Amino acid sequence: MKLARFTIPGDAQSEIRSGIVEGDTIREFSGDLFGSCTLTGQSFELKDVRLHAPLSPKHIIGIGKNFVDTGVEKPAIPDMPILFFKPLTTVVGPEDTVLLPRGTDEIKFESELAVIIGKEAKNITPAQADEVIFGYTVTNDFGALNYFHPEGHWTIGKSYDTFCPLGPVIETEFDYRNARIQASVNEVAKQDAMMERIITPIDVMISYISGFMTLQPGDVILTGTPAGADMVRDGDVVDCFIEGIGHLRNTVKAQ
Amino acid sequence: MKLARFTIPGDAQSEIRSGIVEGDTIREFSGDLFGSCTLTGQSFELKDVRLHAPLSPKHIIGIGKNFVDTGVEKPAIPDMPILFFKPLTTVVGPEDTVLLPRGTDEIKFESELAVIIGKEAKNITPAQADEVIFGYTVTNDFGALNYFHPEGHWTIGKSYDTFCPLGPVIETEFDYRNARIQASVNEVAKQDAMMERIITPIDVMISYISGFMTLQPGDVILTGTPAGADMVRDGDVVDCFIEGIGHLRNTVKAQ
Repeated sequence: MKLARFTIPGDAQSEIRSGIVEGDTIREFSGDLFGSCTLTGQSFELKDVRLHAPLSPKHIIGIGKNFVDTGVEKPAIPDMPILFFKPLTTVVGPEDTVLLPRGTDEIKFESELAVIIGKEAKNITPAQADEVIFGYTVTNDFGALNYFHPEGHWTIGKSYDTFCPLGPVIETEFDYRNARIQASVNEVAKQDAMMERIITPIDVMISYISGFMTLQPGDVILTGTPAGADMVRDGDVVDCFIEGIGHLRNTVKAQ
Repeated sequence: MKLARFTIPGDAQSEIRSGIVEGDTIREFSGDLFGSCTLTGQSFELKDVRLHAPLSPKHIIGIGKNFVDTGVEKPAIPDMPILFFKPLTTVVGPEDTVLLPRGTDEIKFESELAVIIGKEAKNITPAQADEVIFGYTVTNDFGALNYFHPEGHWTIGKSYDTFCPLGPVIETEFDYRNARIQASVNEVAKQDAMMERIITPIDVMISYISGFMTLQPGDVILTGTPAGADMVRDGDVVDCFIEGIGHLRNTVKAQ
């Protein structure tokens, strides 16, 4: 099932609605994404709505240096992954603009699979991880490398407003272990890798994170980007694509 | 004005209520802390209520290495501070237990002034910072140093559940530039310093953070800890104290 959030251009209320995407149609529902939902009976043509980030996350947790290139031998799973948080103010939706920080000419894009947690989870094992996953979406984990602190902290560089596009939909049924992660910039292919190239697998990541913080419905885990992530500049269009979920396309703009 | 959140032990509803603390009394109000509030007319004796963290933050942003000891020359304000986020699952209240991570014998406490943002703020100057502050509370910014990543990321070590006690109250009128920050462990004094020892001042911090993320009502900034922060172990009682706000006392426990 594909879930999205949307508004209807021209609608005076301009409230964000939720819906199930079926082909070219979106069937509106109301209620709590992680609780009980009811179809409202209203349907819209996909072409008539504007999609937003498919959820308003509770936390956004990213992982660094988590993929190796094709042909490169995989290192062991590290005892301690590199993790970082992105504030909720980084979230934008499909087709939204990603803003270059003032005085910064280029930022790095990273096409990634984002996992959405649907159940509270503390101290779970990797074998229990699949049970707490609600669904999956595509993310572009932008970073301003000139704001990575020389002592190693990525906080500022990962946290600029608009630096976490999410979408276009949440796919609730998805075989993440066989995901193929792709990206292009201005229609030139940049990334194309299978999930098999991941170092700390998703179930191990979820288990690890649940060991220090109680995961909650709405927490979003950005699972790392494969080889090929690159710098982008004013006017560049980045298209992150995961087959089975969709395209997440955003334009980078100077302020 | 001192604002607190509380429950009434034995109350079957056990909902968290909000109130204004006046002497030994707490006058309940309802509504949005950052919007409009109305007194309910109910009052309680402070001794009959249990205080909780005085707000449910939106984001928690911490700063590292931000104080110098008495007698030490202050370095210049750095171009880029060391910043980190703590997830909301770290928040506990006065008298609550702080849990040692499994397999960890000691963690570091840090008594700090926490600033609560009350207005949306983007790209503001230091001179505008005071206008967006809603109030102040005391925090104990715990860290498990064995979970600081060797490449510099503090994320995991700062993020264990219970690692951000807040309280006892939000003081809305407070001269933060002259704050005195103290702490004791098992009644032995450990920290006692004036705000003058800060490196990146609070108004500069707020301005800096507003340059990368839109600050919002409910965002909490932990402003750094003075000299004397130390390791604590199972059974230790840490009392963080800022005159004019109050004592924030928590006991460390092994799991």
